[in-house]
Amino acid sequence: MCEAPAGLAGQLEEGGHVLFQRVYFEDTDFSGLVYHARYLHFLERGRSDYLRLLGVHHRELAKDGLAFAVRRMTIEFERPARIDDIVAVKTRPRKVGGARIVLHQELLRDGERLVEASVEAALIGPGGRAQRLPEAVRKAFD
Amino acid sequence: MCEAPAGLAGQLEEGGHVLFQRVYFEDTDFSGLVYHARYLHFLERGRSDYLRLLGVHHRELAKDGLAFAVRRMTIEFERPARIDDIVAVKTRPRKVGGARIVLHQELLRDGERLVEASVEAALIGPGGRAQRLPEAVRKAFD
Amino acid sequence: MCEAPAGLAGQLEEGGHVLFQRVYFEDTDFSGLVYHARYLHFLERGRSDYLRLLGVHHRELAKDGLAFAVRRMTIEFERPARIDDIVAVKTRPRKVGGARIVLHQELLRDGERLVEASVEAALIGPGGRAQRLPEAVRKAFD
Amino acid sequence: MCEAPAGLAGQLEEGGHVLFQRVYFEDTDFSGLVYHARYLHFLERGRSDYLRLLGVHHRELAKDGLAFAVRRMTIEFERPARIDDIVAVKTRPRKVGGARIVLHQELLRDGERLVEASVEAALIGPGGRAQRLPEAVRKAFD
Repeated sequence: MCEAPAGLAGQLEEGGHVLFQRVYFEDTDFSGLVYHARYLHFLERGRSDYLRLLGVHHRELAKDGLAFAVRRMTIEFERPARIDDIVAVKTRPRKVGGARIVLHQELLRDGERLVEASVEAALIGPGGRAQRLPEAVRKAFD
Repeated sequence: MCEAPAGLAGQLEEGGHVLFQRVYFEDTDFSGLVYHARYLHFLERGRSDYLRLLGVHHRELAKDGLAFAVRRMTIEFERPARIDDIVAVKTRPRKVGGARIVLHQELLRDGERLVEASVEAALIGPGGRAQRLPEAVRKAFD
Repeated sequence: MCEAPAGLAGQLEEGGHVLFQRVYFEDTDFSGLVYHARYLHFLERGRSDYLRLLGVHHRELAKDGLAFAVRRMTIEFERPARIDDIVAVKTRPRKVGGARIVLHQELLRDGERLVEASVEAALIGPGGRAQRLPEAVRKAFD
Repeated sequence: MCEAPAGLAGQLEEGGHVLFQRVYFEDTDFSGLVYHARYLHFLERGRSDYLRLLGVHHRELAKDGLAFAVRRMTIEFERPARIDDIVAVKTRPRKVGGARIVLHQELLRDGERLVEASVEAALIGPGGRAQRLPEAVRKAFD
């Protein structure tokens, strides 16, 4: 059987990460365009794969009772994506604190920006308390 | 502030359970109709609320490391639902074994059937092993 | 067969609208809490049912090639919701312009706020152009 | 900026198609495993990309008022997928009629089967009527 494509988790690039994704049936709504909440899925995949290429895996974190949680988002829906589109999710760290990171994210199609977002995330431990970010993450994002 | 409506978890009726649900934006796709996988969400809400009215709660089960899992489904998509529709989810037990239940489910709009499904579910314990169904469930479904 | 509960579309209240919704399996993720993008579904249901009780229906709008689109959101995820929770979605108009509305939305559980959002929406016509809001909406929101 | 990976739409292989996909946060539920209805999303992506490589595009079909609709599914959930998993979606035509196709689909992880499904789909025209399948699809699937 053939193998998973090399770029499945996207690529690290100068100052951040980029991930290409397809828009499928599931992402659209009856207006014919992508349902607004689905853009958050694309953005989350970008963040997850960025962390993955930095060596941080959700399943590993979960063994210690840790999970990333989004605390705050500002999102501009500038232009709509449509079924069959290929979109690029670009993620860049903006601020890295002890317990929180702020990421700047964009969704682009053929270089044109469709969505822009600012995402504040924290690492949550058992009981819901914010935890200090792993050193690997803080270094990579610095 | 006003209160949650009495029928939020649907109603037990002769031989089963019925739950009314609205079709929202999120449920549709660019064909203008409900996305096929979303019907499974409606069916799952019906099963969950049926169990709820029988006194079985997912959060309680989870404390003992238990969760219901679907093992097998046959589903007929007969007629499409559309945005703004109100649909009724009807659930009836068909077979109740020691570790598995088979449920018959229908989605109706104004008495007309849109979807028919047969769903086999099992109760899964820590490590993924099938567990004996709670006595309350077996009795209620008998 | 029994009927859909009276409160299925929520209720108009002083200065806005409230809708009660259940948290189901589909809304959660492997952290055990509600997946962040799912809160946007709850908020959108609140907005849709608010419009519905004001006499504006998505399917009617669609006949004229019109659909509401979210342009901008700021959202604070303050406390997590969990499976089996009943949450209240509160929606209030903040600003009503010719072509855009800004709504303030909250998600509460037992009176405690879980999520707060500011949502700017526009009515989009064929070709993606912003349209003047229906008089009924502007009056109701004023 | 870097380019979309070559394998984004999967690959045609002897007698069918294979597509690799990542399991993300959005796909899981509070049981820690993939939510059962999400497997249908993975399967649908496989079918869409198979058609895409055969030269059939949803957006093109939509211009003629055409869309594929699932009529019937039988699905076995044999083993669960988990977050961070890479899964392969395999799709093979089983029966190709004038207006309907039956596909056999499997979801595998490291060669081990997780899900098996039989999917009957039809091409639907304006007004909801089943249409004759495009010649390209019938030939390719033959």
